[in-house]
Amino acid sequence: MLVDVRNPLNIGAAARAMSNFGVLRLRVVNPYEVAFRQARSAVGAADLLSNAEECKSVAEAVADCALVVGTTAVGHRDLHHPLRRLDVGARLIRKNLATGNVALLFGSERFGLSNQDLSHCHWLTTIPTRAEHWSMNLGQAVALCLYEIVRLNKPMPAKDSVKAARAGEVERLTVSLLRILQTSGYIKPREADATETKVRRLIRRMNLESRDAQLWLGMLRQIAWKVGAGTETS
Amino acid sequence: MLVDVRNPLNIGAAARAMSNFGVLRLRVVNPYEVAFRQARSAVGAADLLSNAEECKSVAEAVADCALVVGTTAVGHRDLHHPLRRLDVGARLIRKNLATGNVALLFGSERFGLSNQDLSHCHWLTTIPTRAEHWSMNLGQAVALCLYEIVRLNKPMPAKDSVKAARAGEVERLTVSLLRILQTSGYIKPREADATETKVRRLIRRMNLESRDAQLWLGMLRQIAWKVGAGTETS
Repeated sequence: MLVDVRNPLNIGAAARAMSNFGVLRLRVVNPYEVAFRQARSAVGAADLLSNAEECKSVAEAVADCALVVGTTAVGHRDLHHPLRRLDVGARLIRKNLATGNVALLFGSERFGLSNQDLSHCHWLTTIPTRAEHWSMNLGQAVALCLYEIVRLNKPMPAKDSVKAARAGEVERLTVSLLRILQTSGYIKPREADATETKVRRLIRRMNLESRDAQLWLGMLRQIAWKVGAGTETS
Repeated sequence: MLVDVRNPLNIGAAARAMSNFGVLRLRVVNPYEVAFRQARSAVGAADLLSNAEECKSVAEAVADCALVVGTTAVGHRDLHHPLRRLDVGARLIRKNLATGNVALLFGSERFGLSNQDLSHCHWLTTIPTRAEHWSMNLGQAVALCLYEIVRLNKPMPAKDSVKAARAGEVERLTVSLLRILQTSGYIKPREADATETKVRRLIRRMNLESRDAQLWLGMLRQIAWKVGAGTETS
């Protein structure tokens, strides 16, 4: 819910973030320009914007909501409301969404929510920012709040392509590299044991994926051939 | 780190979010307009923008970083990198920040990071959005990533003003209200016990703060006087 927002670009940006996170009901109280529905910044959210409901007052806009939460950057006035950090507030909002509509109010770019607006709120939430620069862009603030409230649990692509290398692969690789190092004269006879241990550890620290172990084995086989170190099968 | 970003407004928005969250080193690879430093949207982040480092290539830009993380909206191409959801990725980035610089790469508004850019990345992170509308505004995406990585632990104002009412206050209030209801004829003698229980529960469900209990007590005292119910002390 946007209250007294003056810049149509910000309304568009808010609408885009809403669409990104699947929050599709926008109410606009007293927008500065009636032309806000054409906001250029609403990439992909034109429908949402054209369905936005225009309200004359906050009271009208929140009438069907069971919980009304205001957003504030704080720091600039005495607050008479409980104030919750966004992560904590978001959890509470999620809970309340199970039983009724929740309104999240954003005020104007310059002044935020007025005391009159705030009197309709049950409590306030704030995004923790640096004390030296607490004023956030409206579109970014909307995106942050919705991200934290919605917390989409999008499944990540299956990870079968990043299978870890098995110990056998890693050991073949180690042996291959050691043979090359021996043939190349890198391993001094006196320090052979110490060097071998060092190389063995080095390769384990690489935490190789299986496909990368295979890649290394191929490269080392070729190098071994070139330096005349013989291969693991020879 | 912004790569091939075309719109100075987006660079400005990114800079503003960086300043909000205290991430103060911006590198810009191949910006489309040299005039990006005057971006209007960088409210409060002019210094950060004028100190931004311009680089010719991603390789140059990430040279002193121990971890390079790319951002992607996914969905539009095969990925050859491990992909982590932002919340998971952010935790990993925080850990790595203890031991070295971390680069977070954002690509151009239209195409994101190129395969060439991606080849410099250790892994990728993505913001979970709706499948139907996954393309986020760049400035909003930057704000989200930094919010989740930094997770400023700004202390909330002391809550001594929202002290919960003590049981004694609540009970005085209950008694006062019951007397008024009796005098007003709301309580029918036959149902007196049931009604009293109902009212007692009603008032406990209000979860009153101490100051609000005092406010109620004052109002009820006045009403009691008006209806001739006597006060708790009379």
